[in-house]
Amino acid sequence: MPLASTYNKTMSIVVVGSVAYDGVETPHGRVERMLGGSCTYIALAASYFTKVRIVAVVGDDFAQEDVDLLASRNIDLEGLERTAGKTFFWQGVYSQDMNDRDTLRTDLNVFEHFDPKLPASYKSEPYLLLGNIQPALQRSVRGQMAKPRITGGDTMNLWIEHFRGELLQTLQGWDFLLINDGEARMLSGEKNLRRAARAIQAMGPRTVVIKRGEYGAILFHGDDYFIVPGYLLETVFDPTGAGDCFAGGFTGYLAQQGIDLADGTIDRRELSRAVIFGSVMGSFCCERFGVDRFRTLTREEIDARFQEFKTFTDF
Amino acid sequence: MPLASTYNKTMSIVVVGSVAYDGVETPHGRVERMLGGSCTYIALAASYFTKVRIVAVVGDDFAQEDVDLLASRNIDLEGLERTAGKTFFWQGVYSQDMNDRDTLRTDLNVFEHFDPKLPASYKSEPYLLLGNIQPALQRSVRGQMAKPRITGGDTMNLWIEHFRGELLQTLQGWDFLLINDGEARMLSGEKNLRRAARAIQAMGPRTVVIKRGEYGAILFHGDDYFIVPGYLLETVFDPTGAGDCFAGGFTGYLAQQGIDLADGTIDRRELSRAVIFGSVMGSFCCERFGVDRFRTLTREEIDARFQEFKTFTDF
Repeated sequence: MPLASTYNKTMSIVVVGSVAYDGVETPHGRVERMLGGSCTYIALAASYFTKVRIVAVVGDDFAQEDVDLLASRNIDLEGLERTAGKTFFWQGVYSQDMNDRDTLRTDLNVFEHFDPKLPASYKSEPYLLLGNIQPALQRSVRGQMAKPRITGGDTMNLWIEHFRGELLQTLQGWDFLLINDGEARMLSGEKNLRRAARAIQAMGPRTVVIKRGEYGAILFHGDDYFIVPGYLLETVFDPTGAGDCFAGGFTGYLAQQGIDLADGTIDRRELSRAVIFGSVMGSFCCERFGVDRFRTLTREEIDARFQEFKTFTDF
Repeated sequence: MPLASTYNKTMSIVVVGSVAYDGVETPHGRVERMLGGSCTYIALAASYFTKVRIVAVVGDDFAQEDVDLLASRNIDLEGLERTAGKTFFWQGVYSQDMNDRDTLRTDLNVFEHFDPKLPASYKSEPYLLLGNIQPALQRSVRGQMAKPRITGGDTMNLWIEHFRGELLQTLQGWDFLLINDGEARMLSGEKNLRRAARAIQAMGPRTVVIKRGEYGAILFHGDDYFIVPGYLLETVFDPTGAGDCFAGGFTGYLAQQGIDLADGTIDRRELSRAVIFGSVMGSFCCERFGVDRFRTLTREEIDARFQEFKTFTDF
């Protein structure tokens, strides 16, 4: 178990993104309204590894039980702004094989004018994880930090297509990018994932993780790479948030280990373990609707699944 | 290196399938006519691991240089029947991303009345690998063997859809089945690959390898499983034959190690290494058109790529 080797250097993470209510339908069922949002999933997943401080906005309809869930995971909510109006609402329906989803409704509500402001107590934290929001907002958040040692985040097709210049400017300052395979191809203009990763590395982030849904993920770090297959779930109930949980597990493990990505001597195997913990958290996320799995999940279950990955990839 | 540990118990393999000429067009080029066929690819790949004896039919147009290539790999050609007429010809064109292909032409020619007859010298060999041909022919070949210790093979959508009863009867006698993910779902009626594998195991083969193209493969053996991601090629020139080369590498390694799949105590890690060698041979196959890569490929290159798999999956 590599888990506790450098635990004493554990760093905190500041997470920015959306806190939302989601309506989701999958072949296994339907939920009209439940807690969701990229910041929520990232924070819950990362909270198993280190201290997490969130920056997000919710409306006056945000339920106390949802505040309580985040607080129960020891997540710092000082940066969770409450404002008049309704919380961001998203509604979607998944295809039979769950590889596609259609958005039925997006009500930005209070998220429309989200202007993230970091509490003073957040500004000197070493790790910054930028959930999938407008690239200019991601950059603004980074600008408010004193001097983050490690910055990484996520993006999506919308920003790649319509805010490309802004996104490229934002990525320059990042140490790592988490991106899915289709988006990596779109961002780089390269079909082959090795070439796509190289092109993205040239945009800024030395470490690029390409997520492949059920097929797993590939980590590119400098000239080195690591590939992990996806966990074979018997039933995927709801894939919503799996990518964000991957981000939370990945970054959470790196922060727990106190890993400084800017340090050229970093052990690639530590990064690979972070990819495994990302995969583990993504797989748990899919086992229940929404954030439900995190109501009962324990660190022991997470470490046991890490070991399962060892077993089924060993030869 | 696990490679040579039990080399002294190496077994020979009898391979049955098609020997053909192919016309192939991929985004990287076009070849009007070149050596192909499932038996050809399997035999070439397996020949790096053990002695291979083939059973197939060709026409009187079969070129001496193609005989020479097979002979140069020390493949036993006693069972390669030559008959009046033309060799099986297949022509296809791949899509831009090479995940699909359209068949433009299939001339069965002498293959239409192929009635495989095993030379006496083949009948007591321990390993039998049945390439993708009509299930009744696969069964007939097995019936001609004295008592093969291990039988395995491949199948395809055509037989699953239109010869289901015959295929099910044939599979009963197999120790392992190699099948791609779409066909595994079709054969089992299960979308989830874990469940699909379990359903297929109940049809006969205790060991099932589900191939996922560029995403790698999953081995199911009893209740145990192993997953390997695909090798990240920078350029795929021509995927024709990659699945057959996987079968050749997989079975070749098992035969080289003298592994008896019927033995309940078999080490799952040896099976996993066989999957890696299958993946290695499939990846080399894609690097050139047709069988061209096998004109220069060495065992040293194969073992080096095996080590590469170790490196990029290690955490």
